[in-house]
Amino acid sequence: MSKRNVIVGQSGGPTAVINSSLYGIVFEAMEHYDKIGKTYGMINGIEGFLEGRYLDFAESLPGGNLEFLKSTPGAYLGSCRYKLPDNLDDPVYPRLFEEFEKLNIGYFFYIGGNDSMDTVSKLSRYARSIESDIRIIGEPKTIDNDLILTDHTPGYGSAARYVAQTVREITMDAYVYEKKSVTIVEIMGRHAGWLTAASVLARKYVGDNPLLIYLPEVDFDTEHFLKQVEAALAENINVVVCVSEGIHDKDGTFICEYDSNVGTDIFGHKMLAGCGRYLENLVRDRLHVKARSVELNVSQRCSVSLISHTDLQEAVMAGRYGLQVALNRGITGKMISFVRCSDDPYVVACGLEDVDEVCNQEKHVPAEWIIHDGTDISQDFITYALPLIQGAPLIPMGEDGLPAFADRKRK
Amino acid sequence: MSKRNVIVGQSGGPTAVINSSLYGIVFEAMEHYDKIGKTYGMINGIEGFLEGRYLDFAESLPGGNLEFLKSTPGAYLGSCRYKLPDNLDDPVYPRLFEEFEKLNIGYFFYIGGNDSMDTVSKLSRYARSIESDIRIIGEPKTIDNDLILTDHTPGYGSAARYVAQTVREITMDAYVYEKKSVTIVEIMGRHAGWLTAASVLARKYVGDNPLLIYLPEVDFDTEHFLKQVEAALAENINVVVCVSEGIHDKDGTFICEYDSNVGTDIFGHKMLAGCGRYLENLVRDRLHVKARSVELNVSQRCSVSLISHTDLQEAVMAGRYGLQVALNRGITGKMISFVRCSDDPYVVACGLEDVDEVCNQEKHVPAEWIIHDGTDISQDFITYALPLIQGAPLIPMGEDGLPAFADRKRK
Repeated sequence: MSKRNVIVGQSGGPTAVINSSLYGIVFEAMEHYDKIGKTYGMINGIEGFLEGRYLDFAESLPGGNLEFLKSTPGAYLGSCRYKLPDNLDDPVYPRLFEEFEKLNIGYFFYIGGNDSMDTVSKLSRYARSIESDIRIIGEPKTIDNDLILTDHTPGYGSAARYVAQTVREITMDAYVYEKKSVTIVEIMGRHAGWLTAASVLARKYVGDNPLLIYLPEVDFDTEHFLKQVEAALAENINVVVCVSEGIHDKDGTFICEYDSNVGTDIFGHKMLAGCGRYLENLVRDRLHVKARSVELNVSQRCSVSLISHTDLQEAVMAGRYGLQVALNRGITGKMISFVRCSDDPYVVACGLEDVDEVCNQEKHVPAEWIIHDGTDISQDFITYALPLIQGAPLIPMGEDGLPAFADRKRK
Repeated sequence: MSKRNVIVGQSGGPTAVINSSLYGIVFEAMEHYDKIGKTYGMINGIEGFLEGRYLDFAESLPGGNLEFLKSTPGAYLGSCRYKLPDNLDDPVYPRLFEEFEKLNIGYFFYIGGNDSMDTVSKLSRYARSIESDIRIIGEPKTIDNDLILTDHTPGYGSAARYVAQTVREITMDAYVYEKKSVTIVEIMGRHAGWLTAASVLARKYVGDNPLLIYLPEVDFDTEHFLKQVEAALAENINVVVCVSEGIHDKDGTFICEYDSNVGTDIFGHKMLAGCGRYLENLVRDRLHVKARSVELNVSQRCSVSLISHTDLQEAVMAGRYGLQVALNRGITGKMISFVRCSDDPYVVACGLEDVDEVCNQEKHVPAEWIIHDGTDISQDFITYALPLIQGAPLIPMGEDGLPAFADRKRK
């Protein structure tokens, strides 16, 4: 059997470990040099590949340089938000597979979230229709943890660690003054509250902040919210409130829309920002108390110092597993998943899920994990999430004392 | 000679190492158990002390627990923004010194910025007027680095490391898409641009982002800014711009005031927020390009993971030195300063400055360090700042996998 080549792409928003998944695939491919020739990377995903942009990892990150991927934020290959046409008769499909043929691709990997699994689904269905033997595998990633059929997603553990530690630090900062204050922390997550729920891990003792946590799984009512904040202020000097960017009222209107204009991205997602600032002003105006807001913003997905080592190792594992099953078992049209074998000790294994079932669906925080009239998170969540944020990897430092990243030359 | 006691307070906004200065004073006091009896901490500074609130470190942080101070954000003792009256005949002064007498205080330390040095100045002048032998020492701290008569301030190095690394990460995040984009990063600093200047350290190579850096030392003109962003976009896909929260136009109006209401704190400082968001909207509306903004916010002063080890060690050194000179040399009415002996190798020694000269003054970034028509920072600054952000201390972790902090019980 002659050698076949591998191609990998990254798509959608980055996570702190999306490059660790990439590392896992490329590392495992290079280990199988008897069966695999070159390992290519699509630059800016399918969109860039259609423009003829790709690289060869042996040239781009030779030898030990590959290791830097594990501590590099962003998407090393660049990303895209390109949606393949629903109609598999579209000429883009034969065009893509002709390119794959030219590059002698035998294995195609796409690292991404819901929308990227849609790409994997379409490509694998098209491949089946033309009887192509290219193995097509989806590698999950999202800080939102909203993919179904997997215990959790690579990227979530690091983002959750960022949220937990940063909210703990913000709480310490809030305790500095003996003056009644409310701090609103706005956390990423459009429709699923997994990341906001992780703020419960910031508590150092029972009754510690954050005292109120609001997820998008529950309808938000500003008058009800003000009463809950007022009650918390009656018993505490400094109140820290964590809210998801995607909180909305019972009519589905996002709270951030109360105050600002919003646009939509090409998938039709509303581009959200600003509910924290809105609630800060509301609390100040209505409760006449010192208020501030902190939007955790992109550091949730790109903070290298707060990568969870567990998350990093699992991302590498998922990447390596994907290559192994495609190569050794001929698996195609599947997404790599995590199956939890045990909470304590925490044990996780890789699984395979039908990508057609995964794409364009969302997993929400179970209703029974949201307690105290929609303002708190249950112990079940803590048991679930705590293992995912454990450990701090060693980050290689450059001569300037800052982390050394694997970076492509660019304009 | 009978033993005298020590009392320490913290005042003003916290830094990542304000508790390391506290550690230095308390550690050194405990080393001198032959001459020093108890070491007290004022809870919420002078203001709390006047309400009778203080603690004894031997009870509050016994034995090795003291070590946790070095990795604890916020102000362990709590802070205040209490301004002592200008008139030294005010009855608050004899009241304070009677309390000191009751507690057998021989040494008084106040850790803070400009406003806190004002407190130290007034207390030491009053002490002189009543011929009190209490030694009164100011310990500097501010992330703003705006105290005069010192090479730099404890707290600045860690905040600068936070800014440099986080801007580097945000840049990697910005490089993910091949679509023209502008990212505005808003950095703390009311009137001095030291912290915003540290964003220049984020560059990995010549021509890397951040491409434009704006300090409050230079008048800001929005039309000029838009032209500079447009020029940067002509040659680059992703443009990262760093701005100080305190940028203002030639008439002294803050850019954030163009868009929002602002209040003032009790020292008459304008409370700023939002120039980043304002410029984001301006860029989107006028240049029709994808724009986003990131406000680095309080993590600049409370991120434990990005403490500079150099900064931490110097804060401890300043604390210990203050205790030593008060105890052994009878020094009073002075602020501990840093004197740079050499850039390479980086060597710093402690000095003593007249606190009357330090208080209520501000040190700005030298005009000659601000280059390229007010959009860039010179190599002189890099030589100055790079040693200050070096090293990562080991942070003790709790059973939950998050940093273990020294925390007081509170309501």
